[in-house]
Amino acid sequence: MKRILYDLAGADPDFRFSPYCWRTKLALAHKNLPYETIAWRFTEKDEIAFSGQGKVPVLVDGETVVADSQAIAEYLEVSYPHEASLFGDPPSRALTVLVRHWTELTLHPAIVKIVLPDIFLRLDPKDQPYFRRTREAHWGMTIEEIAAARAEYLPVLNAALAPLRQTLSVQKFIAGAAPSYADHIVWGALKWACLTSSTPLLAADDPIVPWMRGVLETYGL
Amino acid sequence: MKRILYDLAGADPDFRFSPYCWRTKLALAHKNLPYETIAWRFTEKDEIAFSGQGKVPVLVDGETVVADSQAIAEYLEVSYPHEASLFGDPPSRALTVLVRHWTELTLHPAIVKIVLPDIFLRLDPKDQPYFRRTREAHWGMTIEEIAAARAEYLPVLNAALAPLRQTLSVQKFIAGAAPSYADHIVWGALKWACLTSSTPLLAADDPIVPWMRGVLETYGL
Repeated sequence: MKRILYDLAGADPDFRFSPYCWRTKLALAHKNLPYETIAWRFTEKDEIAFSGQGKVPVLVDGETVVADSQAIAEYLEVSYPHEASLFGDPPSRALTVLVRHWTELTLHPAIVKIVLPDIFLRLDPKDQPYFRRTREAHWGMTIEEIAAARAEYLPVLNAALAPLRQTLSVQKFIAGAAPSYADHIVWGALKWACLTSSTPLLAADDPIVPWMRGVLETYGL
Repeated sequence: MKRILYDLAGADPDFRFSPYCWRTKLALAHKNLPYETIAWRFTEKDEIAFSGQGKVPVLVDGETVVADSQAIAEYLEVSYPHEASLFGDPPSRALTVLVRHWTELTLHPAIVKIVLPDIFLRLDPKDQPYFRRTREAHWGMTIEEIAAARAEYLPVLNAALAPLRQTLSVQKFIAGAAPSYADHIVWGALKWACLTSSTPLLAADDPIVPWMRGVLETYGL
């Protein structure tokens, strides 16, 4: 059976920077499921029209099509119950909901202001007008204005990361001895940040660094 | 066996506002353990010198003395294993570490700037010089300067609470169907905020409101 993931890419088809796609790639690794990816750009809506919507990740798992990283994680958990659980028991799963909303409502906004101009430069030229129009409308600023204020955004991200740093200085993974989907969610955010930022965001001795490596090592990546 | 908790109080001995003491009170309720409290003020270091340090909560559990809310929670979990678990299984416990650091490094700093001047006014007069000295040194601002900037701090708290609001709009407790110590930690922060703030911090339709009531109802409080 063929398993295909539509994965956001830049001008370089190997520049895969979406935090939501990274969640899905780690979830597939966690479930021990091989897959192929198709590089996809923001404006290639026709390519994924079969999924009934216009964003990635989109997973094609044999006959089944699932869009949205959260829906994909829930689908994998139900469909592959004999592989390691993504969420753990009900209380762990509930706690993961807070981790998800913290990532999306605190970490992502802190990261995006820093990396948005960097991402713009690395997009396929056909995506740049779409990206500029949608992001400038959302933030009420031009990409150039966001770039000019970069120095203001760095301390906001540092403050937002403090709880993660403190946690990873006392335990190996967010979920303890082994990563779970809570790790995947936060890892996706950090991978997106580190991959796209034109300046290093993490110092060499940052406890986030060995955790990022440790997640990959867990899955042999 | 007598179980006594030293609990931070203001000029009014029934004004019990410490977020850390609230954690402990909820943890004791969770473990179904009756206790008495002793109202304690910041400068009454002599009263708890027997604990080897100078802060509350301090729990006296028969012959055992434990200081520090985290140490107390761990003590209760080990000492009363037949009551409901505070932390759940190891992954839940690990996730609770992130919730704790998020509470202490993101929520608490957002709350304290808003309520610090309100707390000052309600302290026992003997505590006020100590509180002023330590807090002004920590923040590099006078209490009056912090009070004057209150309007700036409110949107910061609102932004910090967004992940909690989103979580509690889809599930009853942070830990899911029933509260765990992760709920106690965050609840203590919100109780501290709501009890001390001179203006309401939560709208009537805020999803945090029924959760706060639900935690108390769980324990018949």
